[in-house]
Amino acid sequence: MEEIEEVFDVIELLEGKQFGKVREVLSEMNNVDIAELFDDVSKENAIRLFRLLNKDDAADVFSYMEPDAQQQILEAMSDKELREVLDDMFLDDTVDMLGEMPANLVSRLLKNTSVDTRVYINQLLNYPDDSAGSIMTIEFVDLKADMTVEEAFAKIKETAIDKETVYTCYVTDRFRILEGVVTVHQLLIADRSAIISDLMDTHAIIAHTHDKREDVAMNFSKYGLLAMPVVDGENRLVGIVTVDDAMDVLEKEVTEDIETMAAIVHADKPYLRQSVWQIWKNRIPWLLLLMISATFTGKIISSFEDALAVFPALTAFIPMLMDTGGNAGGQASATIVRGLALDEIRMEDIFRIWWKEFRVSLMMGVTLAAVNFLKILVVDNMILGSNISLEIGAVICVTLFTAVVIAKLVGSTLPIVAKKIGFDPAVMASPFITTIVDALALLVYFAVASAVLGI
Amino acid sequence: MEEIEEVFDVIELLEGKQFGKVREVLSEMNNVDIAELFDDVSKENAIRLFRLLNKDDAADVFSYMEPDAQQQILEAMSDKELREVLDDMFLDDTVDMLGEMPANLVSRLLKNTSVDTRVYINQLLNYPDDSAGSIMTIEFVDLKADMTVEEAFAKIKETAIDKETVYTCYVTDRFRILEGVVTVHQLLIADRSAIISDLMDTHAIIAHTHDKREDVAMNFSKYGLLAMPVVDGENRLVGIVTVDDAMDVLEKEVTEDIETMAAIVHADKPYLRQSVWQIWKNRIPWLLLLMISATFTGKIISSFEDALAVFPALTAFIPMLMDTGGNAGGQASATIVRGLALDEIRMEDIFRIWWKEFRVSLMMGVTLAAVNFLKILVVDNMILGSNISLEIGAVICVTLFTAVVIAKLVGSTLPIVAKKIGFDPAVMASPFITTIVDALALLVYFAVASAVLGI
Repeated sequence: MEEIEEVFDVIELLEGKQFGKVREVLSEMNNVDIAELFDDVSKENAIRLFRLLNKDDAADVFSYMEPDAQQQILEAMSDKELREVLDDMFLDDTVDMLGEMPANLVSRLLKNTSVDTRVYINQLLNYPDDSAGSIMTIEFVDLKADMTVEEAFAKIKETAIDKETVYTCYVTDRFRILEGVVTVHQLLIADRSAIISDLMDTHAIIAHTHDKREDVAMNFSKYGLLAMPVVDGENRLVGIVTVDDAMDVLEKEVTEDIETMAAIVHADKPYLRQSVWQIWKNRIPWLLLLMISATFTGKIISSFEDALAVFPALTAFIPMLMDTGGNAGGQASATIVRGLALDEIRMEDIFRIWWKEFRVSLMMGVTLAAVNFLKILVVDNMILGSNISLEIGAVICVTLFTAVVIAKLVGSTLPIVAKKIGFDPAVMASPFITTIVDALALLVYFAVASAVLGI
Repeated sequence: MEEIEEVFDVIELLEGKQFGKVREVLSEMNNVDIAELFDDVSKENAIRLFRLLNKDDAADVFSYMEPDAQQQILEAMSDKELREVLDDMFLDDTVDMLGEMPANLVSRLLKNTSVDTRVYINQLLNYPDDSAGSIMTIEFVDLKADMTVEEAFAKIKETAIDKETVYTCYVTDRFRILEGVVTVHQLLIADRSAIISDLMDTHAIIAHTHDKREDVAMNFSKYGLLAMPVVDGENRLVGIVTVDDAMDVLEKEVTEDIETMAAIVHADKPYLRQSVWQIWKNRIPWLLLLMISATFTGKIISSFEDALAVFPALTAFIPMLMDTGGNAGGQASATIVRGLALDEIRMEDIFRIWWKEFRVSLMMGVTLAAVNFLKILVVDNMILGSNISLEIGAVICVTLFTAVVIAKLVGSTLPIVAKKIGFDPAVMASPFITTIVDALALLVYFAVASAVLGI
């Protein structure tokens, strides 16, 4: 047992045309790692490498490749080679791949699949992108309730499909209605002559084809499942979702949340594979919107121009007040957005959250204001030699306190409201909250300044 | 097959003392859902509910409970009850639970475990918190290389352990050195008389006890694994990690990343279970640090006081410039932080990233500056009646452009540098970058203003 770190070797061997040796190294590598090799080789070498693969592994390696690499290989393949790979691939992987290919290639691929396969592919392509149907596979072991364990094992051996889908078996009636679920673990410890209907669990966690895929994925982690049956509107079993696909969905959802929280429109491709143009397109909309909404803060400052001319020290603290407010609001919103995503926080918790955030914000406001007051006295006035009066110091600290309290309440409320009205809570995170809190903080600042300084 | 939504019913039945009916409903519910019931019942009812559980399910339900609920139950249990639950629990769950209990309860619990168990618990407790060892379980099926498939099935049937750990079996020699891995799927389709050593995979993905647990968890999603063997320094098999625990680790890592990116110190408890004091403690350090670092921006503005007095319009655009710069930098850093976490981006990509971000930032800078110039002419001057001169407009737009370019380069570089020097890249996200970009943007602003406006 040893880990393999042969990425450079294989490519060097390939370039040195030592094909026998390449074959040998490949046979000891994990298919996922082999698929990664295709990211770094020339088009010619990609085809060469692919043809050196063990026939049994080729389809599996292919399904792990990046879409760009898949396309390169597909375009160079003969129809016969295409048919072989497509026959060996799992249907859900084929459907995923088709979604990434250009139209002319898709039609050539479909021409090279059997009629049956084409029917299934079309069905799978019809489920909405974010539904359980779109991530399910239709390859699973189905048993009948009156089978014995012995017969069940025979059926499993005969179907002998993908390793991830074999450990949970599904019991259906003659109308394909799902009756129950039985695990291979149960079969292994049961008597050979036991009847499936006595073993099966009739209360398994199931999904419906149109359930949101992230909800389905969350249930995998909640219930610790390896696979979940997917039924249609009539409770007919139409497919299953496996844990590896659920993990992919969770990973994508998190990336999408993080991007949304950073004011980026989500793209399905990894960063390094996105063109400069795509990245621009994903980043510019929110940035433009946020820039234009800063007109408000500008307007608030303009209307206070005269006072700022009389007390120029007030201007110097604008960035600190805005940043601290924005950061305080961002903390609250990030916490709530993540809590909502994990289903740890629900709509009905809003009053508990307000009460919690209110007390936290009071404590934080007092701490920050006190430290800031000291900082003004010691750092600004004594060390840096500024000459900030106690009145101005008081204005700044009162504003800081108020801004933090407002920021926490706005930051914790907006994501929940967004969810309630059917928006993505993550949109309400940091940059958006910053813009709102900036304007509110400035209004408070100038109101307090007017009151205390008499302007 | 139907989903169960009986949360209120059970508690109502319990309060109505209809214990027979409670037992019936419980027998049809998933153990994870039963565990959730304990979040909402009184201490008395919690014990009552726990004693109504099917004996076979009690330990499983218990291991899914929140630590607070577990503690309540443990404190009310007799030593006999304790022993029964501890005997039935999986060791990794016991260790997780012990980590959350107060010291006096831990010693009572340890007193009620067998000597063997205590030895294992102590071993497991000795692995660092973030290591593979800390998330592994020591319950797995181990086979010998010279067994037949028939013998392997007998061994599985005899050990009959947790469903997640039975599907991959581990082949060890007499010194417990891991020789290979064989899946139940392989056993099921093989001949009954086949020899394990002919079936086993000797190149399986493995982990070492001291590997970082997030790296191990990432490999589950990369290779689509259900379980992974963990070996010690001498390649002896000491445990396995299962996919459900890997999913938990990934979920926690993501929460930690999101919190860090929002300037929050990570806490292990869910938000609603944290006290106000804990939340304050997790949020105040970064906010204080960021507030104090805003001294720089204040200082920059102060030193430019006179110019701002002559051109007061310049002040009004400070928030817009700072926010846009901060948001632009935040976009880049969030993308890079996530890419690093998913291992899609590596250290050696830094030049590709700079080149990409540089081009993106030029395009974004031009777009934002152009739109902003138009906005000044149309919205500010014509609609809002401000009177911003073309020179000032130019100063603002040149600064905006420069700030965006700087922000993107800083935002994409810092997370990679952080990772290189062994820091958490997520620390370099939004709030931190905002503070740096703010200062840089102001310096550019006043430099450009001096040059163009001759002040």
